[in-house]
Amino acid sequence: MDRKLSGIASIAGIGATEFSKDSGRTEMRLAVEASLAALDDAGIEPAEVDGICTFTMDNNPEVDLHRMIGGRELKFFTRINYGGGGAAAPLMQAMMAVATGAASVVLCFRAMNERSWYRFGAGTPSTENPQYTNANHYAWYLPAGLNTPASYVGMAARRYMHKYGATSEDYGRVSVSARAFAATNPKAFFYEKPITLEDHQASRWIVEPLHLLDCCQESDGAVALIVTSTERARKLKNKPAVIRAAAQGATAGQHRMTSYYEREDLTGNPEMSLVARQLWDQSGLSPRDIQSAIIYDHFTPFVLTQLEEFGFCGRGEAKDFLRSGEHTRTGSLPINPNGGQLGEAYIHGMNGIAEAVRQIRGTAVNQLAGIENMVITAGTGVPTSGLILGRD
Amino acid sequence: MDRKLSGIASIAGIGATEFSKDSGRTEMRLAVEASLAALDDAGIEPAEVDGICTFTMDNNPEVDLHRMIGGRELKFFTRINYGGGGAAAPLMQAMMAVATGAASVVLCFRAMNERSWYRFGAGTPSTENPQYTNANHYAWYLPAGLNTPASYVGMAARRYMHKYGATSEDYGRVSVSARAFAATNPKAFFYEKPITLEDHQASRWIVEPLHLLDCCQESDGAVALIVTSTERARKLKNKPAVIRAAAQGATAGQHRMTSYYEREDLTGNPEMSLVARQLWDQSGLSPRDIQSAIIYDHFTPFVLTQLEEFGFCGRGEAKDFLRSGEHTRTGSLPINPNGGQLGEAYIHGMNGIAEAVRQIRGTAVNQLAGIENMVITAGTGVPTSGLILGRD
Repeated sequence: MDRKLSGIASIAGIGATEFSKDSGRTEMRLAVEASLAALDDAGIEPAEVDGICTFTMDNNPEVDLHRMIGGRELKFFTRINYGGGGAAAPLMQAMMAVATGAASVVLCFRAMNERSWYRFGAGTPSTENPQYTNANHYAWYLPAGLNTPASYVGMAARRYMHKYGATSEDYGRVSVSARAFAATNPKAFFYEKPITLEDHQASRWIVEPLHLLDCCQESDGAVALIVTSTERARKLKNKPAVIRAAAQGATAGQHRMTSYYEREDLTGNPEMSLVARQLWDQSGLSPRDIQSAIIYDHFTPFVLTQLEEFGFCGRGEAKDFLRSGEHTRTGSLPINPNGGQLGEAYIHGMNGIAEAVRQIRGTAVNQLAGIENMVITAGTGVPTSGLILGRD
Repeated sequence: MDRKLSGIASIAGIGATEFSKDSGRTEMRLAVEASLAALDDAGIEPAEVDGICTFTMDNNPEVDLHRMIGGRELKFFTRINYGGGGAAAPLMQAMMAVATGAASVVLCFRAMNERSWYRFGAGTPSTENPQYTNANHYAWYLPAGLNTPASYVGMAARRYMHKYGATSEDYGRVSVSARAFAATNPKAFFYEKPITLEDHQASRWIVEPLHLLDCCQESDGAVALIVTSTERARKLKNKPAVIRAAAQGATAGQHRMTSYYEREDLTGNPEMSLVARQLWDQSGLSPRDIQSAIIYDHFTPFVLTQLEEFGFCGRGEAKDFLRSGEHTRTGSLPINPNGGQLGEAYIHGMNGIAEAVRQIRGTAVNQLAGIENMVITAGTGVPTSGLILGRD
């Protein structure tokens, strides 16, 4: 993306429902509640929403949402594929819409009863036409026992341990820090429930080398974000979280979570490297300009590889970064200060973006000092996306 | 969209498979064939494709397509909801990507075995979770016998006839002209098979007031389009088809094909009016600057309402426009010179966009004289989109 567009758009409003194991209401109702809350937070009337962006996986039709919140004219609507890999991309779309004049107030949302209505962790669906590429894709993995996101990540995680000497404890250090943040976040699933490294090690296997406490919980809930021009955002109720950069990425040999066959190495996330390069280039920033990061943590192992792809540490050195606690509340780069998806909730990455907005505003429950810029990453191992948000 | 962006991007390549009732191969293979043909037509290497846009309804994952054609880095991927309403919007997305630098060579495609693998005309799916808004939506229409696209359109078509005195013969005039164009297009389903108004009147009812010959055939096939900067397109193999304007639209009371309840009037397409206003504003053009149009013709009745929404004739006057043959080969605004979806094939609107490119290049089989600018519309009655393409 053109460097000239860095900063042109901002997140002006954030809203969410509670996060739970059973919301007790429809996904559409969750979407409406979060959207109205985000608009109220921005101080923008629903009738002004003229763009909506979400995930292809979201079950809520954007036009119905627009009608239900009281929208009038919708001039821009688009969806991003690949689950959590899409989390940052709706914001990129919103930024592009604002930059080109396609829309002026863009609602980005994700609403799901992913705990009470269905569970991604239950395995891949088998009802699709087997001639579809997607069904065909999974047919190559099922016979090897690979049938859940945890199993796909486990394959890469094992190889990473072998190559760089990382251990299960290193993965556990990601969880322990996330749960420490969650323990002081009243909106988190795991409020007041910290864990120790011993708890992590003692938790049951899901798919070796992943313990239960390497995996985020499945969740019901919704998050919505309002994007408008930075110029307008400056006049609204809350301080803008400026979109310094936004990018998507997929690279050679890319499959969804199972890029095993055409790549020489399983121990990185080259698609995230492509995102990182674009984010640094577009923003003109570098790792030392970042005070905290939202690193997509559906499973702990890819937090390590992402730290490396962004250059927060050298290749294979994330274990050392974690052992010295750089990712914790008192470290040089606190990660996921809301508790992350491991500790707060799994809203497919959108709750992490809302947390970055709060950190930049200075209103987070676990507020960190001196926040100027934050990196946010989206679903890892899939075609993905990322953001840099900053203070105005 | 900002007027400054009018003309910044162009369609540089088009490709398609044959159109048939049974392609005999997978949808992915169709997508690959059309994409490689479009790249060859443009004179651009597959490795250069860094953006892909399609419909949410397309079953071909964009990253698999990218890998299979030999792509390397994908920096932009997005999908548009609402079936044929999305047809023009991937091109709008591509234009936005080029304008912002998000991608430089964007592949837009639609590939489907919509005849041999499944049929939209078979009715709405009943397997969705009834708590989903989409399933819930259809639950309001099924008890009234509304279960297919033809039935949804029929409701509005009947009201339009009542209000403006249009007749079934007027709808038939759309088909007769489309089939006349198809009769001289060797790639059309209905090559060498023209029809008369009497044939139309004698064809069986599908849903009153729609005869069989008011409905497009269901089709297997794929179409791909390559978008790049106009600056680059000028140096490529074929003359650019310049994107003068691109827009999406949904308006108050919008439902998908069934906006019956919250609008005072069923006889227009206000969402298409919103698209038209944006297209005229962005391009600086008006109806008299347009020599031919691709008007989405899944069913004949909405061709009339679209002519009115774009201002090609007054409200309620489309019947007179058709009776005087303005839409035919020798009229003032020939419509769908490829034979349209009624005569060539139903590739969800994408084949019409390819035809507009050929008309602008001067290479169409039914080439019209003096083509400078063409309007293209996407699926009607749903949240929709449109384009104006022009000569460089």
